[in-house]
Amino acid sequence: MRDEATKAVTAIGQVLQEQLGHGLLAAGSKLPAERKLSELFGTTRITVREALLQLEAQGQIYREERRGWFVSPPRLAYNLMQRSHFHAMVSAQGRVPSTEVISARLQPASAAVCEWLQLPALSSVIQVCRARRIDGRLVLYVEHYLNPQFFPGILDFDLNESITELYARHYDLHYGRVRFEIVPTALSVDAASALRVSVGSPGLRIVRVNYDQRGRLIDCDLEFWRHDAIHVGVDVV
Amino acid sequence: MRDEATKAVTAIGQVLQEQLGHGLLAAGSKLPAERKLSELFGTTRITVREALLQLEAQGQIYREERRGWFVSPPRLAYNLMQRSHFHAMVSAQGRVPSTEVISARLQPASAAVCEWLQLPALSSVIQVCRARRIDGRLVLYVEHYLNPQFFPGILDFDLNESITELYARHYDLHYGRVRFEIVPTALSVDAASALRVSVGSPGLRIVRVNYDQRGRLIDCDLEFWRHDAIHVGVDVV
Repeated sequence: MRDEATKAVTAIGQVLQEQLGHGLLAAGSKLPAERKLSELFGTTRITVREALLQLEAQGQIYREERRGWFVSPPRLAYNLMQRSHFHAMVSAQGRVPSTEVISARLQPASAAVCEWLQLPALSSVIQVCRARRIDGRLVLYVEHYLNPQFFPGILDFDLNESITELYARHYDLHYGRVRFEIVPTALSVDAASALRVSVGSPGLRIVRVNYDQRGRLIDCDLEFWRHDAIHVGVDVV
Repeated sequence: MRDEATKAVTAIGQVLQEQLGHGLLAAGSKLPAERKLSELFGTTRITVREALLQLEAQGQIYREERRGWFVSPPRLAYNLMQRSHFHAMVSAQGRVPSTEVISARLQPASAAVCEWLQLPALSSVIQVCRARRIDGRLVLYVEHYLNPQFFPGILDFDLNESITELYARHYDLHYGRVRFEIVPTALSVDAASALRVSVGSPGLRIVRVNYDQRGRLIDCDLEFWRHDAIHVGVDVV
């Protein structure tokens, strides 16, 4: 891009950011149309679009198909050191969680799942795919993989509920040690379609490998978060 | 995109990914030109480009200005629970770290830095900006902010060296508690120009707030990583 255009983009970004920072544009509110913004800033649509894309990449605003640009809600604080689960964590931050089961079945475990769960080749695994919302907004697509030996009959339960609580209530299993792996990534076809964003949109992939209170490897979660939905916190004492 | 085009993109992606997965395309090696790839796959440049962009977003390949596409080196394992620093961490993984100081000076602390370091308004802070490489590749731009009261004369030392080791050797200060905050983000102008990538490229921002062995808040680091350079690991016991 030419130098002046870069400067114009930066200037527009700073103005919008300042208004966002001061809460003049509230979370969830719609920005004026790009045409209006280009009038306001006395510049081209292309320049305005570039500034909006940068704010989107920073997670400050987001797009909805055919509806325009919106101000991002605050990120959820995801503290890895707290033994919490999605439902409890979201509620504790004064927001409303919800969950939909996309699919749940016994199936052959992929090579990656065999490795995470330390299963022999050609093992079966229970896969539960869910989409999760905060205040109605899709933020997380998660594939849970459960070692079936620990969870007889679990597919008969209502898996829209917290799986953590199901474990405790019906199987007397509680999480012990957890290993997290965090990688910034592009959303795959499955994750993108569940979150209703374009394939290849930026996301954060978090793999959680979970042991129970007796040190047995019981399940793992493959989480795909919208890139603008969380910030991860870790306290190392 | 039309359905057939999407399928073609996915198919090309899978072929390339399979070859990458089997090590047939070694880390650092150059992919054939886009024109050659479009001949090979019997498809348009646009479709090939789309497939390459998706692999780039997944961190499997990367671009260099005017030089083409290259296979990404393996991600550095960044284990937050290990008290390590860049130089030691990279060396321990059999790779070669290097560091360049971009700037180092005493300056007024920004509002964010005042908050991280719990400094009063209008405080001074020592800012050290550095770019760090693994095996010669720029992967990390970091801004260190040091509370000057703990580090008299530190600007006279060679800051290309490990700051952690400087602290120990000259100030008898060692890191104690550390708080990490991890946010996927777009690289800002400073970070992007230090890493020689386009502004707005995806990155991982890690803020480290560091206490010393006596529980005093001594410094914080604002790290901007190339999105394809690390995976973060956390073990919660």
